[in-house]
Amino acid sequence: MEKGMFENVLKDSIMRRLNNLTKPIGSLGYLEKIALKMGLIQNKVIPDLPKVKRIYVFAADHGVVEQGVSAYPKQVTYQMVLNFLNGGAAINVFGRHVGADVYVVDAGVDGDFEFTHPNLINAKIGYGTADFTKGPAMTRTQAIECIEKGKEIAKKAIEEGTDLLVLGDMGIGNTTTATAISVAFGFDIDEILDIGTPIDNDTLERKRQAVEKAIEINKPNADDPIDVLEKVGGFCIGQMAGFIIEATSRHIPVVVDGFPTTAALLLAWKLEPSVLDFVFAGHKSKVKGHKVLLDAMNLRPILDLDMRLGEGTGGALAISIIEAAIKMIREMATFDDAGVSKGSDSV
Amino acid sequence: MEKGMFENVLKDSIMRRLNNLTKPIGSLGYLEKIALKMGLIQNKVIPDLPKVKRIYVFAADHGVVEQGVSAYPKQVTYQMVLNFLNGGAAINVFGRHVGADVYVVDAGVDGDFEFTHPNLINAKIGYGTADFTKGPAMTRTQAIECIEKGKEIAKKAIEEGTDLLVLGDMGIGNTTTATAISVAFGFDIDEILDIGTPIDNDTLERKRQAVEKAIEINKPNADDPIDVLEKVGGFCIGQMAGFIIEATSRHIPVVVDGFPTTAALLLAWKLEPSVLDFVFAGHKSKVKGHKVLLDAMNLRPILDLDMRLGEGTGGALAISIIEAAIKMIREMATFDDAGVSKGSDSV
Repeated sequence: MEKGMFENVLKDSIMRRLNNLTKPIGSLGYLEKIALKMGLIQNKVIPDLPKVKRIYVFAADHGVVEQGVSAYPKQVTYQMVLNFLNGGAAINVFGRHVGADVYVVDAGVDGDFEFTHPNLINAKIGYGTADFTKGPAMTRTQAIECIEKGKEIAKKAIEEGTDLLVLGDMGIGNTTTATAISVAFGFDIDEILDIGTPIDNDTLERKRQAVEKAIEINKPNADDPIDVLEKVGGFCIGQMAGFIIEATSRHIPVVVDGFPTTAALLLAWKLEPSVLDFVFAGHKSKVKGHKVLLDAMNLRPILDLDMRLGEGTGGALAISIIEAAIKMIREMATFDDAGVSKGSDSV
Repeated sequence: MEKGMFENVLKDSIMRRLNNLTKPIGSLGYLEKIALKMGLIQNKVIPDLPKVKRIYVFAADHGVVEQGVSAYPKQVTYQMVLNFLNGGAAINVFGRHVGADVYVVDAGVDGDFEFTHPNLINAKIGYGTADFTKGPAMTRTQAIECIEKGKEIAKKAIEEGTDLLVLGDMGIGNTTTATAISVAFGFDIDEILDIGTPIDNDTLERKRQAVEKAIEINKPNADDPIDVLEKVGGFCIGQMAGFIIEATSRHIPVVVDGFPTTAALLLAWKLEPSVLDFVFAGHKSKVKGHKVLLDAMNLRPILDLDMRLGEGTGGALAISIIEAAIKMIREMATFDDAGVSKGSDSV
């Protein structure tokens, strides 16, 4: 109750500041909500701009690709990690654009990276999950290990000074896993199922059957999020859930990207409901189920550009808007400062 | 026909490049369309990043405010110009954020600026338009003068090296004028009328009556855009139309902002249909009529953040996305370069 009272005082102070900037009340729309949330996260009327922005792309393979659910062969996961480390992927381009460094986490790629790279984090749980149409994707021990590894990675990022985090996911088959997680938590498969990479109707039908079979065979327990992760999850998604829980417990904002990162958020939210106070939805992806998950968590996406690439691309681009919102409340003149007359909407 | 053929060859080359970047076909959604359009505008497969970005905010007063259609008193137009020149308005904050200089055009503010400022352009047609509920907003000579002044301003900007332009509008009463222009061109007032600044229902009803009376008394001729401008236009809107026509004739892209700048685009489009090939819609404003105009011109807004401030704020924020789209096609690795396997969607 104490906390709630202080939060209301802070919220009133932030709103007073927003309403006294030289613009009609509320006319900067969602930017004002972003500024308010950032103030509440930082416990400041006038939030600071992020000083160290980082994008963490969690890469892993998914055993379910053996069921023929993707347009791409499995080895693309490994190849794309190399592309990330060489700076040639979309997320590298957008990371540079918004001034954020890109880190790649090997959460469980089927292949060894036999070199070290300052932006590659080895957190491998295994060489891809097992095919969850035939049994659990991983063991319960591995599921718990995913959460713990994800927490460690967030802890280190924050100890190194990071104050704004973007989550990305890479792994052929990841939207099939994200669909299975969503269905395991009770979402209707018809509202979720969609193509991730461009696939034909036959492939989409195989994707549906794989998810339905995974649920039928494994019977994940929606009341036990770790059981859901074990039965139909992915190494990347489990680590991202742990990452979100740790970062938000330290009051560091996390921007999620598309459907797989949002499925990880769903898992994190089931484990720790307070995470949502510190999370921004970077964009609404074109993957149908993404909006369904965002709506369930009452999160409004910042961008809506029909993207469906993943890697953190939508989250990265949203940084520019988040920073604009912070600069708005930091730099705009107030009516009093600027000698501008208030309108009949003034408070 | 020659031009069409060359354009198709260029378009094919740009699409081939886009489809060979290391991502599934089309997975960067609208960013790919932006990159394509920018390539066609610049006549290059790989478009250049803009070197000189400028925002032009056209300020003017509107005689119709005498009918009590706004939440703000008329002198706010003058005061906000001073705020722009002092760098304290939202558009200044966002201009700095995206690296664009803000120029303010006095198209017809009711008051003299008795000083010079490097970012203030004196293009005053008069001290605000006449109240168009009682007769034409301006003379036909003034309407033509608006178009010419707007062209001159664009010409100078481009001669000074500007290669990306954002349009903004400031003027108490501007959404009433934009509504009148829309209705004059045949749009249904019920689909257009909305609040600009926050006003109550009585004020909104006065706004409707003012527009209906303006149309009834002045009988603007939809087949003669200059007549529409004369009868129910604004000095700012006329100058922005001229600005758009000149800039696009020189193949310099223009980003429009909210409802008034889009009403200016409507006017420019009626005068010169080819302008749309060079125009981006920065955002969808919360003002209802804005989307109706954008749809009529088949323009998709880049951002959708419930903003309704004007000043060019939505256009300015869209620069970050436009630049990201250009960087995507410039900097991303291709499948061949990166040694990444193509998918079944490859062409």
